[in-house]
Amino acid sequence: MLMNTVEIVLKEKCGLKAGDALMVGVSGGPDSLALTDVLLRLGFSVYVAHFNHQLRPESKEDAAFVKEFAGSRELPFILDSGSTASYAKAQKLSIEEAARELRYQFLFDQAIKENVSAVVVGHNADDQVETVLMHLLRGAGLDGLVGLKYRSMTKWSQEIPLVRPLLQVWREEVENYCINHQLEPRYDRSNQDTTYFRNRLRHQLIPTLEEYNPNFKELFWKMSDTLSADRDLVEGLVDDVWDTLILEKSDDHVALDLKVFKSISLGLQRRILRKSIALLRPGLRDIGFEIIDYAILSISSPPQSSQTDLIAGLYLQVEEDRFMISEWDANTVREEWPQLVDGLPLNLEVPGKAKLFGGWEVEAKILDITPEIKKEILGNKNLFAAYLDITDIGTNLLIRTRQAGDKFDPLGMHGDSLKVSDFMVNVKLPRRARKNWPLVFIKNKLIWVPGYRISNNVKVKDTTKKVVRISLEKH
Amino acid sequence: MLMNTVEIVLKEKCGLKAGDALMVGVSGGPDSLALTDVLLRLGFSVYVAHFNHQLRPESKEDAAFVKEFAGSRELPFILDSGSTASYAKAQKLSIEEAARELRYQFLFDQAIKENVSAVVVGHNADDQVETVLMHLLRGAGLDGLVGLKYRSMTKWSQEIPLVRPLLQVWREEVENYCINHQLEPRYDRSNQDTTYFRNRLRHQLIPTLEEYNPNFKELFWKMSDTLSADRDLVEGLVDDVWDTLILEKSDDHVALDLKVFKSISLGLQRRILRKSIALLRPGLRDIGFEIIDYAILSISSPPQSSQTDLIAGLYLQVEEDRFMISEWDANTVREEWPQLVDGLPLNLEVPGKAKLFGGWEVEAKILDITPEIKKEILGNKNLFAAYLDITDIGTNLLIRTRQAGDKFDPLGMHGDSLKVSDFMVNVKLPRRARKNWPLVFIKNKLIWVPGYRISNNVKVKDTTKKVVRISLEKH
Repeated sequence: MLMNTVEIVLKEKCGLKAGDALMVGVSGGPDSLALTDVLLRLGFSVYVAHFNHQLRPESKEDAAFVKEFAGSRELPFILDSGSTASYAKAQKLSIEEAARELRYQFLFDQAIKENVSAVVVGHNADDQVETVLMHLLRGAGLDGLVGLKYRSMTKWSQEIPLVRPLLQVWREEVENYCINHQLEPRYDRSNQDTTYFRNRLRHQLIPTLEEYNPNFKELFWKMSDTLSADRDLVEGLVDDVWDTLILEKSDDHVALDLKVFKSISLGLQRRILRKSIALLRPGLRDIGFEIIDYAILSISSPPQSSQTDLIAGLYLQVEEDRFMISEWDANTVREEWPQLVDGLPLNLEVPGKAKLFGGWEVEAKILDITPEIKKEILGNKNLFAAYLDITDIGTNLLIRTRQAGDKFDPLGMHGDSLKVSDFMVNVKLPRRARKNWPLVFIKNKLIWVPGYRISNNVKVKDTTKKVVRISLEKH
Repeated sequence: MLMNTVEIVLKEKCGLKAGDALMVGVSGGPDSLALTDVLLRLGFSVYVAHFNHQLRPESKEDAAFVKEFAGSRELPFILDSGSTASYAKAQKLSIEEAARELRYQFLFDQAIKENVSAVVVGHNADDQVETVLMHLLRGAGLDGLVGLKYRSMTKWSQEIPLVRPLLQVWREEVENYCINHQLEPRYDRSNQDTTYFRNRLRHQLIPTLEEYNPNFKELFWKMSDTLSADRDLVEGLVDDVWDTLILEKSDDHVALDLKVFKSISLGLQRRILRKSIALLRPGLRDIGFEIIDYAILSISSPPQSSQTDLIAGLYLQVEEDRFMISEWDANTVREEWPQLVDGLPLNLEVPGKAKLFGGWEVEAKILDITPEIKKEILGNKNLFAAYLDITDIGTNLLIRTRQAGDKFDPLGMHGDSLKVSDFMVNVKLPRRARKNWPLVFIKNKLIWVPGYRISNNVKVKDTTKKVVRISLEKH
């Protein structure tokens, strides 16, 4: 029975076939012994891997026991150990989390080294019920209610999956299998310790729930199985929508289309945000509801502050046509923006040329006012080209980034001088572009904010005889 | 606080606005009193409706209390009563189910009569938690975990929704509201009776779960709210797929494309089946996992028996290109099939014409064998036209349905006579078409199964001088 079930799961849910090499995590308990035994009977090639977490006095004996078990089957045995307690302290993790991190890192290191088809662990159906119940008690969405997967890709490898062939098999069946096949596993006594949350579920809460429905475990298992089909549906939908949303993507940021985002349903919005965060922080678990709903609120009505702190060093920033999730110091400058490298100033002779960052060039030309030029000035729609009265301009312009105290007297505001930083906010210049945005000065007088406005002081008048045409162009 | 919450829910989740007329179910308990009070303050036009379930000694006093409450607010009061116990007995329902049926039938009858915008009931956030927990303990999928909805369409009306504006408000808040607004509700003492499953959850299980997480109720509520967004996503997807799957639809059956069905994911298959069943049995609740998975299994490998019993008098039938869910005696005859009305036989003169059911006509012509006719016979691709050697045919043919004992000697099987019912199975004539399928006889000798094969006995030979052309055609 157990063997048949596992055989079908290995083939249909895990994508494995007899003969495949597997890195099996063996603790020495009933699950991992039965699993190894079944895998051998089904013709798989097994590496026995044991990690000594140094958490219990008998942990060395456990390791020796697993070594002997592997030897008796003539299987390759791989052992490693590490102080879970000190790792937990250093990484600020719970003991359970630290143990998990160390163990999987070890299993995948070995799996990659031996080039096996999968890392295999012995979670059973009771583990699944406990896991889902734990998620439920801590607040779960669809993903949490699905629980452990038969096969999943993890942060530890892009190619080797983690598989759980016993996920349909109840603990009792595993124990019967051990008895019937003369396997004599070691029992982890800490599994009885009800100061651990999981053990309280196992020994107290689940029996209580069974008083309400004797089939509780079976129904609960079935629920998570059914939900996993629904989750797959939703994931497929999310992937489709993602493609229409994504505008920018790098290692340290993603930017998504604001208008499309606002048009999709709440459920999709939540999942798109989760996906964005997961892309930037692949190892992050348990992203709470609150943070997601807070992000959605911030996107629909952006706060005044520059960036919204999200989670795990990630920030949300809303721009006119998009919103961005990024690291604090992410380089999110877009290629279509003119920028000064490292904010260094440039001199521009009149007439003359100079180079900016990323293929941008700036040029100043002197032109006589003729009827054609007049028409050109009036018809100009290129925001990166400005026509200035030559009076006072002289032969040298300075191109630099904004500095504290810079003022600007934009054309059309009738001499109301304002801080250049306020001007940038008013015209919705994307925040991340502001720092290195090139500004054109005569000495310390700002005469042009490229892409937006010239100063009132340099505007072309009826009396103007000559103009300076300054233009920025990307090559 | 409570009033603001309810105001937003009424507008955004229930689609209602001040001034709308509402049929409010008022038991006299805190929820329905607070609800009525809030609805009045928000400017709705309220009908107070009370159903006396005749379940408790004090039920008449409850009715009098609600009448007085309505009178004190000068609201129209509508009362009805019915013996829940005898209804439960007659309909084989639990007391809770019977009470629910009677109450909603009454509320919707009145709602339709008064032409209101919605039927409103006072379920609160605790009710939601209890409902979802109850579903979970009895085995739920995504729909069960979503629980009660703010707004839903029910079997009781196609136009008037059922709305629950208090679904975000905790019982404690409702009780505080009653105290602060001098509402003095009556308490249903049966709510304390822990022989009722729901009351055991309220008074025992939920407090136990709060020992595992003090925020259990809030997290669990939030879970169902989040899942409802996911459910909406999935439903949208199901609706899209449904349109590509549906081949036939009537009051008593649906037929779906087999090939497309097999190509979609398990999660979608399950939901498509639920949708099919819900269409035919709108009132049916709690369709179990097992029945759905059994149906999927039967569709992928159809059993030998004619129809598979599904649920609530519905049957599954698999044909070559489609599968059908229907009532046992559903009229599922397709218009493109020739059929004999009520199975009555017809005489066909040679030459001559006769009418079948649904615009079909049959015609017999006598033709001399000429080179053109020979070519026509050889090139014939119309399975509803047959060319028979005139020898033995005579001037009268009989068209009738199959009878026990009918044999057939199909062309190309070299004189191996077989039962006509076996022949129909072999050629995959859809089961539901067999009963009234027209067969052409000379006396009791079957010479043609239209759409499939002529008999060996009447085939055109080299020596044939004249043929009878019989054809069926739909006009």
